Amino acid sequence: MRILIAGVDGYLGWPLAQHLAMRGHLVGGIDNQLRRRLVAEVGSVSAIPIATMDERLSAFHEHFGARLRYYSVDLLDYDALANALRDFQPEAVVHLAEIPSAPYSMRGPTESVFTQQNNVLGSLNLLWAMKEESPNAHLLKLGTMGEYGTPNVDIPEGFFEVEFRGRRDVLPFPRQAGSFYHWSKVHDSNNIMFACRIWGLSATDVMQGIVYGIWNSTQSSDSRLSNRFDFDSEFGTIINRFCCQAIIEHPLSVYGHGGQRRSFLPIQDSINCMTLALEHPPKKGEYRVLNQFDRFMSIYELAELVRRSALHLGIDVQISSHANPRNEVENHYYNPDRNLLKDLGYQPQYDPDELTQSMMESLIPWKDRIEAHRNVLIPNVQWDGSHRTASKLNTKGNTA
Amino acid sequence: MRILIAGVDGYLGWPLAQHLAMRGHLVGGIDNQLRRRLVAEVGSVSAIPIATMDERLSAFHEHFGARLRYYSVDLLDYDALANALRDFQPEAVVHLAEIPSAPYSMRGPTESVFTQQNNVLGSLNLLWAMKEESPNAHLLKLGTMGEYGTPNVDIPEGFFEVEFRGRRDVLPFPRQAGSFYHWSKVHDSNNIMFACRIWGLSATDVMQGIVYGIWNSTQSSDSRLSNRFDFDSEFGTIINRFCCQAIIEHPLSVYGHGGQRRSFLPIQDSINCMTLALEHPPKKGEYRVLNQFDRFMSIYELAELVRRSALHLGIDVQISSHANPRNEVENHYYNPDRNLLKDLGYQPQYDPDELTQSMMESLIPWKDRIEAHRNVLIPNVQWDGSHRTASKLNTKGNTA
Repeated sequence: MRILIAGVDGYLGWPLAQHLAMRGHLVGGIDNQLRRRLVAEVGSVSAIPIATMDERLSAFHEHFGARLRYYSVDLLDYDALANALRDFQPEAVVHLAEIPSAPYSMRGPTESVFTQQNNVLGSLNLLWAMKEESPNAHLLKLGTMGEYGTPNVDIPEGFFEVEFRGRRDVLPFPRQAGSFYHWSKVHDSNNIMFACRIWGLSATDVMQGIVYGIWNSTQSSDSRLSNRFDFDSEFGTIINRFCCQAIIEHPLSVYGHGGQRRSFLPIQDSINCMTLALEHPPKKGEYRVLNQFDRFMSIYELAELVRRSALHLGIDVQISSHANPRNEVENHYYNPDRNLLKDLGYQPQYDPDELTQSMMESLIPWKDRIEAHRNVLIPNVQWDGSHRTASKLNTKGNTA
Repeated sequence: MRILIAGVDGYLGWPLAQHLAMRGHLVGGIDNQLRRRLVAEVGSVSAIPIATMDERLSAFHEHFGARLRYYSVDLLDYDALANALRDFQPEAVVHLAEIPSAPYSMRGPTESVFTQQNNVLGSLNLLWAMKEESPNAHLLKLGTMGEYGTPNVDIPEGFFEVEFRGRRDVLPFPRQAGSFYHWSKVHDSNNIMFACRIWGLSATDVMQGIVYGIWNSTQSSDSRLSNRFDFDSEFGTIINRFCCQAIIEHPLSVYGHGGQRRSFLPIQDSINCMTLALEHPPKKGEYRVLNQFDRFMSIYELAELVRRSALHLGIDVQISSHANPRNEVENHYYNPDRNLLKDLGYQPQYDPDELTQSMMESLIPWKDRIEAHRNVLIPNVQWDGSHRTASKLNTKGNTA
């Protein structure tokens, strides 16, 4: 299949390109290297060093035989985007080209508006470009489980049947996101649902849990194929950040008392699930919503998991509660469905204890890199828009 | 009250400014005159000539005593917007500064993206600016009844209580908008709801029906105070367009067979309802959704109404069905609530037959202006993104 990945330089895009190539697909990629610039702007680096895009493309060619056709394109540039689609003629487009950070989107008006501009308008350009240039291609779009928030009812996959005042309808499940970033994904979902309805585009909108883990290339001897691994408080996802904190014996920073429950999955599962969805596309005109996760846990359970795994490696790391910079409920009902991926054949197969332990083993060589950036481990963006480092809570929940 | 109107140069903003001044409020205004440019771009004009902004401001000063403090600001310019708020210190901000056209937003990628950019990012800038500069002001934001679409259940005001798999919650009512313009309003609603939750802003989100009618200034002898009145297929609302068609004996152009039901209200009621909401603000931190309309009718009933009124004036105008350029359901359940405005004291008081008759009487002096632009009366934007004038349907519903 001819698969074009927007965001091919990212944490999910780069391993997905390799995985799809291994499976015999013809892969193209779009990126504008925004992620590299944003991580540099917050004063951080990928814990695991990554090669330049040119080096990555050379290595890809050497190891996978086929060239990865690369388009240096910003999705906000409609003409360049349409040209890339016209040139590549994709059968599927994977859209991972968004700013993925809740704290970045809450930093201030500039970052907030830029997040929605980049994500919502970029996706809208992509919808128009697909309609014009590749109307039969399947769009696989990365949303987030965070679109749903934490309603007091089960979370279905995108839609639910309700009775209201004696009448019934199947309606989009209401979204209650928790940051302007998460809302950008909701806006995308709405635009995509509409584009499928009026233009007959086919899309899979992936409500993905929080991804964690190190992705090891099947060609891992070549460091040019290494994947990025962020650990700063804006672009590092929580388990990855905890593992990096553990490595340098920095207390694991839980927001509030960690009762918040979220969905998670290892990066290997994310790549496998996206591949399953690509190889089993929806029918023409269908807007399909997948909830994509392995399990759900509370943030405190996560910290306990990482602490346990660290102990196995002889690292005794503390868990410390910080005043929650996010305005979110900490104790709530949480029960999302995960039926469609199961129907496609997804079986969670990784043990989080083993995974986090092996992650930390892989990170130990980069301990000094992490240590040199320890100031980015604690959030300094508050949901009220102020910029101050989250203070520690004492056992009574007051700031120390 | 100090009330700042964003979009003060528009169809609702200009009369609202005069009405609020009459009631003793201190009025400020923001605009960038985009509406004038867009109507010119589609090759149309306001049927009733309107003065320049400078002339408007002079007339306002002469007739209402107080100066209207005017800020020539684009909401996409955060710094200029924040400066305006800092300078005016509003107790309420009325946000009417959006591109209000469904067909414009479906014309092509440029217009589609520009609509969401202008509306969604402009509103997001306003939320941040209010948080920073006037966090206690009440935001009155104009949404649209079109956000809801046409679900097969009653339409509540913003939220509904549902039972799902045996558990209950009060959730945002799902939105199913019908154009990228209507979706831009949904995206706004979501961002505003979130801003109220995390920042304690207070907002009234007005889900407004389709406004029609001519607004006559209490100082109507001064034509510098006249309000704009659009009739082109992109910026003219349906009853206004029908009345202009009737005046020049052009058949009333119904899309499809006109079974679509929509909510409507006269412009006088729109101004009164917004004033009611301003003078009865929500409590601090509340996100309040109002459904604002007078009645609902099918498009065919509307055409019949205008045809009837025209007959009273001796004009015998036909109704003609055109292939529906919009991808929408034509026969559907439709039953929206309107409780909050009733609680605030709103009583519909206009008879649509009388109103449309008096509208046409007022428009007769401008018959030549309308006649000179008759080519803009029929839509040439199709929801599939193509540009062709909607063809007529014969009685069997086939294109002639």
